[in-house]
Amino acid sequence: MSYQIKELKKIKCPYEKTIKLVGDKWSLTIIKELRLKENPLRFNEIVKSLSPLSAKTLTIKLKKLIAYEIIKKEPLQVKPDMFTYELSEKGKELIPVIDGMANWSRKWHQ
Amino acid sequence: MSYQIKELKKIKCPYEKTIKLVGDKWSLTIIKELRLKENPLRFNEIVKSLSPLSAKTLTIKLKKLIAYEIIKKEPLQVKPDMFTYELSEKGKELIPVIDGMANWSRKWHQ
Repeated sequence: MSYQIKELKKIKCPYEKTIKLVGDKWSLTIIKELRLKENPLRFNEIVKSLSPLSAKTLTIKLKKLIAYEIIKKEPLQVKPDMFTYELSEKGKELIPVIDGMANWSRKWHQ
Repeated sequence: MSYQIKELKKIKCPYEKTIKLVGDKWSLTIIKELRLKENPLRFNEIVKSLSPLSAKTLTIKLKKLIAYEIIKKEPLQVKPDMFTYELSEKGKELIPVIDGMANWSRKWHQ
């Protein structure tokens, strides 16, 4: 269990927990992007898809989402080291939740 | 249509819109409180229920939620002026969305 997950368990309110995890535009956009693709994505593929997201911001956001066990990072090859990123089960179960957010917003802000 | 709603319409991403509206602990807590009660609430009733929320913070959050048409403010009496606060239709439809957030969080962070 990561340090971040332990810290999260100290927050009592479940709403607050969810916001802490995914309450920012880029975290949600990354989750949405990984969900659209059938296969795990490489770092550069995510950067390319999510322009103008910078590599620096993506690194920070991925690190957070991995620590919170929403995204899984798997080795693809060594020398040079390459990894792929995909949604965990926990991440996949977040999809209907963020779809609900988007649908509500679309209905009321057209 | 309020200035805030007009500004909101400029944001393209529906996820981002929802977070902008309710992506903070106290906004969600106020919505949850209004939903629990059958009748519209007075300002002091909300403050009392949501301790340690301060009157100052509640004023700011209510103003935002009214501008975004999530909460309705209605006159209750004059001299002294009193108002009640309740969820609008838009606010009521947000309930299953934030319930989804809470349920996901409860499942994965026990």
